Amino acid sequence: MRVLGVDPGLTRCGVAVVEGQPGRPCRLVHYEVVTSDPDMDLPLRLLGLDERLAEVMQEFRPEAVAVERVFSQHNVRTVMGTAQAGAVAILAAARAGLPVQLYTPSEVKAAISGNGNADKAQVTAMVTRLLRLEVAPRPADAADALALAICHVWRGGARERISAALRRAR
Amino acid sequence: MRVLGVDPGLTRCGVAVVEGQPGRPCRLVHYEVVTSDPDMDLPLRLLGLDERLAEVMQEFRPEAVAVERVFSQHNVRTVMGTAQAGAVAILAAARAGLPVQLYTPSEVKAAISGNGNADKAQVTAMVTRLLRLEVAPRPADAADALALAICHVWRGGARERISAALRRAR
Repeated sequence: MRVLGVDPGLTRCGVAVVEGQPGRPCRLVHYEVVTSDPDMDLPLRLLGLDERLAEVMQEFRPEAVAVERVFSQHNVRTVMGTAQAGAVAILAAARAGLPVQLYTPSEVKAAISGNGNADKAQVTAMVTRLLRLEVAPRPADAADALALAICHVWRGGARERISAALRRAR
Repeated sequence: MRVLGVDPGLTRCGVAVVEGQPGRPCRLVHYEVVTSDPDMDLPLRLLGLDERLAEVMQEFRPEAVAVERVFSQHNVRTVMGTAQAGAVAILAAARAGLPVQLYTPSEVKAAISGNGNADKAQVTAMVTRLLRLEVAPRPADAADALALAICHVWRGGARERISAALRRAR
């Protein structure tokens, strides 16, 4: 199963594609950080992210998308941008007909490290080891997106989502 | 100038189109409330809103879009859905190549009633009077979207935004 992970952010949005099977090591397909200039107008920032996500889905053909769930109580200063970027990612996936699953940061950390309170350095180290990379992903923002994608592969969530979508379509 | 106003909400999103000139009465073109079922999956809810907004823009051909600015400090319980619906509206406008302007609720209230603290009933009454409607808009959720659109016509904001977009494109 090939999964696109998105760690939403308006200024820096982590995007990663991995491939694998539940319970087995994953293979890195792609990662990047989509950035936008905070001085740019919001519509153009959202449009830039939308267009890049559509290109990534077009190029790497994921079968499912995992997006970090944004909570309103965290980091009030940036939460609106994060929520907006998350909505763009969820919508882009829905428009491409892909099943979307949201995960909280602690679900992702627990899935890949066994510890829902793992810190950023631990997540980066686990991602590097799990994907058998020679060096840690750079920029570090990409590590959370990679962790999301691995989490979704291992949770096998896409199957449930596809089944649910089929049930709804019937 | 024909303006689409959007009062973002995930469960109920006010959508309105009015036409007019700064300083003159506006004419009602269209209004509706786009609803989605809170029990539905978020991707499908965002997709439904996106598709309906695209249809409205296609059908009524606004030249600019005014969206209510969402603040993280207001109504924490629903703010995430509001932010996500707002992002969908802003992105839909940007994808259609339309200039987007964000207004705070008090800017809108001040523009149409002279009072930035006007309550919902006052806004509805002003909108009804300004558009010379025989009855108040129903459902009431549409009144804020109508107020946004009128505010944008009167502020003549679209011209500035088009100029700014042209400056950026050069």
